[in-house]
Amino acid sequence: MIVGIVGLGLMGGSLGLALRSVPQVNRVVGYDRNPHHSAEALERRLVDAIVSWEELKRCDVIFLAIPVEGIIKALHDLTDIPPRTTIIDLGSTKAKIVDNIPPKIRKNVVPAHPMTGTEKFGPSAALANLYRDKIVVLCDLEKSGELQRETAKALFKAIGMKIVTMDAHEHDRHAAYISHLPHAISYALANAVMAQEDAENILILAAGGFRDMSRLAKSSPIMWEEIFKQNRGHLLEAMDHFEEELRVCRALIMGEKWEDLRNWMEEAQKLHDIL
Amino acid sequence: MIVGIVGLGLMGGSLGLALRSVPQVNRVVGYDRNPHHSAEALERRLVDAIVSWEELKRCDVIFLAIPVEGIIKALHDLTDIPPRTTIIDLGSTKAKIVDNIPPKIRKNVVPAHPMTGTEKFGPSAALANLYRDKIVVLCDLEKSGELQRETAKALFKAIGMKIVTMDAHEHDRHAAYISHLPHAISYALANAVMAQEDAENILILAAGGFRDMSRLAKSSPIMWEEIFKQNRGHLLEAMDHFEEELRVCRALIMGEKWEDLRNWMEEAQKLHDIL
Repeated sequence: MIVGIVGLGLMGGSLGLALRSVPQVNRVVGYDRNPHHSAEALERRLVDAIVSWEELKRCDVIFLAIPVEGIIKALHDLTDIPPRTTIIDLGSTKAKIVDNIPPKIRKNVVPAHPMTGTEKFGPSAALANLYRDKIVVLCDLEKSGELQRETAKALFKAIGMKIVTMDAHEHDRHAAYISHLPHAISYALANAVMAQEDAENILILAAGGFRDMSRLAKSSPIMWEEIFKQNRGHLLEAMDHFEEELRVCRALIMGEKWEDLRNWMEEAQKLHDIL
Repeated sequence: MIVGIVGLGLMGGSLGLALRSVPQVNRVVGYDRNPHHSAEALERRLVDAIVSWEELKRCDVIFLAIPVEGIIKALHDLTDIPPRTTIIDLGSTKAKIVDNIPPKIRKNVVPAHPMTGTEKFGPSAALANLYRDKIVVLCDLEKSGELQRETAKALFKAIGMKIVTMDAHEHDRHAAYISHLPHAISYALANAVMAQEDAENILILAAGGFRDMSRLAKSSPIMWEEIFKQNRGHLLEAMDHFEEELRVCRALIMGEKWEDLRNWMEEAQKLHDIL
């Protein structure tokens, strides 16, 4: 099986590294609009070769590891692939993608979202074990062809992922809470500190807790602008719920209702019984 | 030098482990109101022995690794220590402590806040390297005796800490941003998800980012209720600034001002040039 990866950054590059040790994958080729990324991906041996768009179309499986707008554009440039080709997109929001798959290749496409990543980006950020033991969400699977479904499942399993299936809209609502809201919060926390006159003195004191909470604010603003745009409705809804909880917390502190505050914190701790 | 530690949880227990490999420390003894903690600390060899309060008073250095209210009470029970004794408290907020040190032993006391910890608590959470390469803030040092100042500095350096000095009130304002606000946010995020009908389904998707952001919400509500209480003013001020940033973020998303949103995120990224 020959696998092509479009986009050789953190997600695509790490995928290349992982797929190259999968027995049923004979060759992993890459495509990236950015020639520096292509050269770096080759140098780091994330893929076996860099190919043209026409060569890419002849792969058995094509992964789209690029932002959502790019995925939609790429799908429209892939409508002449053979019927047995599998296209797997790794977009962070899924509703807009599934709503824009050209009908002619609907069965070829398996919309996927691997729940993994780091705040880093580009080929130099690639990690061989980024996907291992992580969840991948496959969306609207009943609309993909059987061959494509099974191919996608087999490849994700082969790189050590656990598969969860979900409706694309449900995915986006969940992702708003689990990923997009935390990013918005992390950026807001970083900005709240940076807006202080003595930000540098404050940051001297930063320990593990603050570092964890502000880490997501290192993420690419270009990428996150797009994600916030695509999942605007769900994100605003999740922000509503978060702000409501923060208002509860503030009101309890303002009103010095310490026992109620403790109960509220104990409620929050229950999350970790599930997680 | 004989060192006594009051409170054998995460902070005190880890300190015992660290101090026992410091050459100038001959013996580390512990005191904990909770007999289970005392027994567990001995079993885990966090201290060499458990002592009575009267024996504790004869130590050269006494660390108070207990909550702030307990520290204030303990200081009032230590007014009959010899003049050369050093008392080092590790309270998370400092203003209330420095305002309540009995004048008779003011020179004996060095108020300190090690900027380290984990969300775990109790003797079983103790780690030998919890303090290594971390910052410790020493407050209002000019009010401590010279012997006590130098003793505290030497011990913190011996366990690998970097010393920063600061006014107690300034410390509390900074700590509100760097530690207390992140905890309030983490509890609020956890509660926002837990309040959803399908919280369990949402949490299936939790990856590293969400885990980092919700980790602090595992912290002890009893301990954090007290910290929020003591630093109420500064915390509310920090919450104001955070909520204001979140409002900016929301307004930009609502108004679909994507370029401004990107600029706002780029501003946040600058934090990591300092951190």
